[in-house]
Amino acid sequence: MTKPFDIVRLHHAEVTVTDLERARHFYCEGLGFIETESDDNHIYLRALEDANHHCLVLTKGERASLKHIAYRVSADSDLDELDKLFTNLGVTKRWLKPGEEKGQGRALRIQDPGGIPVEFFFEMDKAERMLQKYHLQGNVKIKRIDHANCLITNIDDLYDWYADNLGFRTSEYTVKTISEDKEAMWAAWMHRKPSVHDLALISDRGPRFHHTGFWMDDAKSILDACDHLAALGYYANIERSPGRHGTSNAFFVYVRDPDGNRMELYTGDYFTNDPDWEPVKWNLDHPQRATFWGAMPPKSWTEEAVPVEDILTGEYLPIEELAHNKKK
Amino acid sequence: MTKPFDIVRLHHAEVTVTDLERARHFYCEGLGFIETESDDNHIYLRALEDANHHCLVLTKGERASLKHIAYRVSADSDLDELDKLFTNLGVTKRWLKPGEEKGQGRALRIQDPGGIPVEFFFEMDKAERMLQKYHLQGNVKIKRIDHANCLITNIDDLYDWYADNLGFRTSEYTVKTISEDKEAMWAAWMHRKPSVHDLALISDRGPRFHHTGFWMDDAKSILDACDHLAALGYYANIERSPGRHGTSNAFFVYVRDPDGNRMELYTGDYFTNDPDWEPVKWNLDHPQRATFWGAMPPKSWTEEAVPVEDILTGEYLPIEELAHNKKK
Amino acid sequence: MTKPFDIVRLHHAEVTVTDLERARHFYCEGLGFIETESDDNHIYLRALEDANHHCLVLTKGERASLKHIAYRVSADSDLDELDKLFTNLGVTKRWLKPGEEKGQGRALRIQDPGGIPVEFFFEMDKAERMLQKYHLQGNVKIKRIDHANCLITNIDDLYDWYADNLGFRTSEYTVKTISEDKEAMWAAWMHRKPSVHDLALISDRGPRFHHTGFWMDDAKSILDACDHLAALGYYANIERSPGRHGTSNAFFVYVRDPDGNRMELYTGDYFTNDPDWEPVKWNLDHPQRATFWGAMPPKSWTEEAVPVEDILTGEYLPIEELAHNKKK
Amino acid sequence: MTKPFDIVRLHHAEVTVTDLERARHFYCEGLGFIETESDDNHIYLRALEDANHHCLVLTKGERASLKHIAYRVSADSDLDELDKLFTNLGVTKRWLKPGEEKGQGRALRIQDPGGIPVEFFFEMDKAERMLQKYHLQGNVKIKRIDHANCLITNIDDLYDWYADNLGFRTSEYTVKTISEDKEAMWAAWMHRKPSVHDLALISDRGPRFHHTGFWMDDAKSILDACDHLAALGYYANIERSPGRHGTSNAFFVYVRDPDGNRMELYTGDYFTNDPDWEPVKWNLDHPQRATFWGAMPPKSWTEEAVPVEDILTGEYLPIEELAHNKKK
Repeated sequence: MTKPFDIVRLHHAEVTVTDLERARHFYCEGLGFIETESDDNHIYLRALEDANHHCLVLTKGERASLKHIAYRVSADSDLDELDKLFTNLGVTKRWLKPGEEKGQGRALRIQDPGGIPVEFFFEMDKAERMLQKYHLQGNVKIKRIDHANCLITNIDDLYDWYADNLGFRTSEYTVKTISEDKEAMWAAWMHRKPSVHDLALISDRGPRFHHTGFWMDDAKSILDACDHLAALGYYANIERSPGRHGTSNAFFVYVRDPDGNRMELYTGDYFTNDPDWEPVKWNLDHPQRATFWGAMPPKSWTEEAVPVEDILTGEYLPIEELAHNKKK
Repeated sequence: MTKPFDIVRLHHAEVTVTDLERARHFYCEGLGFIETESDDNHIYLRALEDANHHCLVLTKGERASLKHIAYRVSADSDLDELDKLFTNLGVTKRWLKPGEEKGQGRALRIQDPGGIPVEFFFEMDKAERMLQKYHLQGNVKIKRIDHANCLITNIDDLYDWYADNLGFRTSEYTVKTISEDKEAMWAAWMHRKPSVHDLALISDRGPRFHHTGFWMDDAKSILDACDHLAALGYYANIERSPGRHGTSNAFFVYVRDPDGNRMELYTGDYFTNDPDWEPVKWNLDHPQRATFWGAMPPKSWTEEAVPVEDILTGEYLPIEELAHNKKK
Repeated sequence: MTKPFDIVRLHHAEVTVTDLERARHFYCEGLGFIETESDDNHIYLRALEDANHHCLVLTKGERASLKHIAYRVSADSDLDELDKLFTNLGVTKRWLKPGEEKGQGRALRIQDPGGIPVEFFFEMDKAERMLQKYHLQGNVKIKRIDHANCLITNIDDLYDWYADNLGFRTSEYTVKTISEDKEAMWAAWMHRKPSVHDLALISDRGPRFHHTGFWMDDAKSILDACDHLAALGYYANIERSPGRHGTSNAFFVYVRDPDGNRMELYTGDYFTNDPDWEPVKWNLDHPQRATFWGAMPPKSWTEEAVPVEDILTGEYLPIEELAHNKKK
Repeated sequence: MTKPFDIVRLHHAEVTVTDLERARHFYCEGLGFIETESDDNHIYLRALEDANHHCLVLTKGERASLKHIAYRVSADSDLDELDKLFTNLGVTKRWLKPGEEKGQGRALRIQDPGGIPVEFFFEMDKAERMLQKYHLQGNVKIKRIDHANCLITNIDDLYDWYADNLGFRTSEYTVKTISEDKEAMWAAWMHRKPSVHDLALISDRGPRFHHTGFWMDDAKSILDACDHLAALGYYANIERSPGRHGTSNAFFVYVRDPDGNRMELYTGDYFTNDPDWEPVKWNLDHPQRATFWGAMPPKSWTEEAVPVEDILTGEYLPIEELAHNKKK
């Protein structure tokens, strides 16, 4: 079942912000991202370990939203193979020319069957890697992008779609008990790189985008980030206090930019590519699932997420109720 | 204004638990305290850096409560000086004979003017110090007791009482705005050892005991404690998620024993004994006062605390409303 | 250039020890490995994140040595493809039947062209995963095996052999200046999983085995390991003090078991699988190459390593001088 | 035995550097000290927790040396009491007028009986405290001065002198075995604040000044300091790799400024003021005394130290051999 293409990892995300200057302060002064390039409508950011043009694009818009998430592939020809596949699958798609997204070669964008705008690309300009330039790093040391967390209404279909067509594997998943002998999938942590995830699919009103996850070295670095953000005046942007997830075993904190785009500062998962890996199963009711230490997320974290863009029209996709909630 | 006695530091606390076996599991297996000695009604615990018999006594009782907190003095004769002082001040007091509290020499107990049962003692049996026996330590490495946090209704009087009579100094305090040009003291962090506090006085319904604070080396050790407690099944006992306090600048987590006695695992304060130290002032409304990172404490943390014992009768002191709340 | 097989990662190592009881104490009490199984001549160990039978095998022998390192493949049929490849390449090999190495399916062992005994296998028994059972973990929290570091005399050939035949990629490498305009490869960090390495090849007298690297979560965990080992009496086994490598950027400490087998406790590398990754180049003379903070390794670390076994005879391979040193 | 004065703690040190600009870069860009004030011959530095003018003074001079260390006292009148004491003791002394050392009130300097230039003062200008201004802090977060480490030739006398006359207490000490039933004091860790030390006295050629110790929050902060210094080009200034001391149990790294003045970045000691504290005794031969993890200090750390100044003439005191070495 080897694919004729190889998706390496989640590589970047593009989100909208309403005020570029305000966003620049939050992301660069606050979170320590490095600005590779900018223009009137975009800021291209990279993290400390990145050797390429961007892992996050801020684009001027009318409200917080997701424009796209992007996966990098192993070879330019993989893009043609994916194009064929998406034609066969009847997926909405469009090609971007080299440079249409700054610093990047040609790219293929689709609307996945859950509604998420997803890009595939191979080539990107190089940029200076700051990993060992510790003296030029600030107090918040984000190393790289890790994953995207999406709220969708059709997890059964979408899970199979990513697994069967794109070769995504599953590290952990959550089920909801429907009746005494029946349970339904509620969420899945899927990956291409051998970590817990590149993509989390969560059943909720959707399509919506919940957060982008960024990797930091250790828990202490995440606490240092909180101190820096809070001292800089961004304490109200720290939405969910530091803790350990049951699912993924990662240590986290969640922050939101001034427009409400959410990020997870994340560390501590594990190797997931052994061929006999058995996905870890959680029940939605497990008191340690969301937080291994027991605390509940705040209401905003549970309820709020941003809309996602139609890759053809640029409009926001309508947000639908969860099917099994409709039934109620 | 040198005193004829020298109070060194908060040295131990005695709290009641309803089930000694259950408490032993929580404190020893869960929190890594070392049991120095026990009998049918008590467990005497010490922390990893302690060279004496106990820093915490668990006593069988009908519900969670504070029996006493204890300060150590520099010399046996200090106790006689304190006795004279308390006679002059008209404070309720009683002497304990050597051994009446196990492992301890003679001691003087009083009910302070806020209602808190407070002990003074000089002599205590030595015990093996575990500080460098890392291989015998567990995953939770509590080093020593740090402070006691008490809810009282008469902060103006009590603050002066500790400052003037016992030589307590103030590192930080909180005021409440009463009117445009008037504010009232709401809380004070007072100390004898040169840290942020041995004693925190908070205005609230009282007298009640809010928590005992224990020192750990660093934030990572506190996170490790959460992992251990949660894995052992005590996730619901982690009441307030890790964070940094505005007041004191300490990194904390709060846990409660199976009966509800509360402890703070605490690290990170600073040196407070320079002679020109100006106490840090916070306003009750400052959004970073309770948590520098902005999060609010859970309702239970804000509202719940345990009663304190009458040093003569052993009964619980009646809990009174705050004077200025009465006025409303 | 896709291979008809997929090597997932370095999965385990087998080293010899002279006294199994003494070794058990060091590895289990000292380093916190979990014993899955043992017999008169072997102890099978796993780390805290492992879901399989072993990541380290201790085998009774006459002196410290390497019996084999093992890579896991993605499918059982990969082993047949590798067998064909090795036949074509004329490499010495032998098959192991299922269970010949306890807990493991059939396996193919070879002597690589540098002399290192290398195994490939697919199937291994499952074992209980301890990752979130924090309360059962000790003070030393090794999560998984990370890499093998081998001393060989023919790096130019061996580097190409691993890259061309087995699909190993290179994250970093070191060159030695030969003359003003000429340099020779001195060491290479090669990987299959997208980390800095599964295999380090270093030019030195060989073939010898320098160390097995094990992953820990963060620097603090590595310091905790030092405290635990030292308190347990193993301070003389901490060979090289904690530091950061220039090459790999990892934080490390090196320890040796009572027979002299060396392990690196390791954390902090980065993602290496982007398709345009340009290997980081170091010059052997760079003062921050070995230790980013400047300290030199101790003489024993630079000079000592253990012999490796002939996969057919079980005898130690003769140790040869480096070719370019011979020329001197 | 209460003294008519109260020495609070070691408060600052003054060392000489040959090039103020070069030193400014090392201390401010490298170590994150804050420059409060400077003139043609001095730079006055404070650490992140300091609320006063300086904890370290760099003074232009011909070579690295110690000009003085300073203790802060509790009251201005303490200085008069100390003056009387030193007159009685026949100690060389001189008064400094207010402002003679910038930012400081009147001060009394002495040459202690070991030859160390020591100052006592009460009053110092206030300065902005940076403790919670995390966003303005750099990667190296030194919080405050902790201790001074001095090499002297007359420990028996000097130890008594500090204990009996100035009220210094001892947390730990080291003895040297002279014969089977005889040992001599070799080193002592003495304190006024309730930490392991304000002053370490070590038997060696002297008087010389070995290092000033500065407090950091935790081990991770000390490792971060190494990364920052190394990346900035100061890797050769990291003299002794991170480790844990046996004596004091502190985690440390040692760095030297471009002139050779040595600093210890230090964390992790314990409370030492309980009235029944029994000083921890080490034997000079204990393999875990210097480094709990077993590593030996580098030769430069063991052999090199800077001269100290005559408080009257400004000349360097002659350096004498250790008495018991002379006898050999």
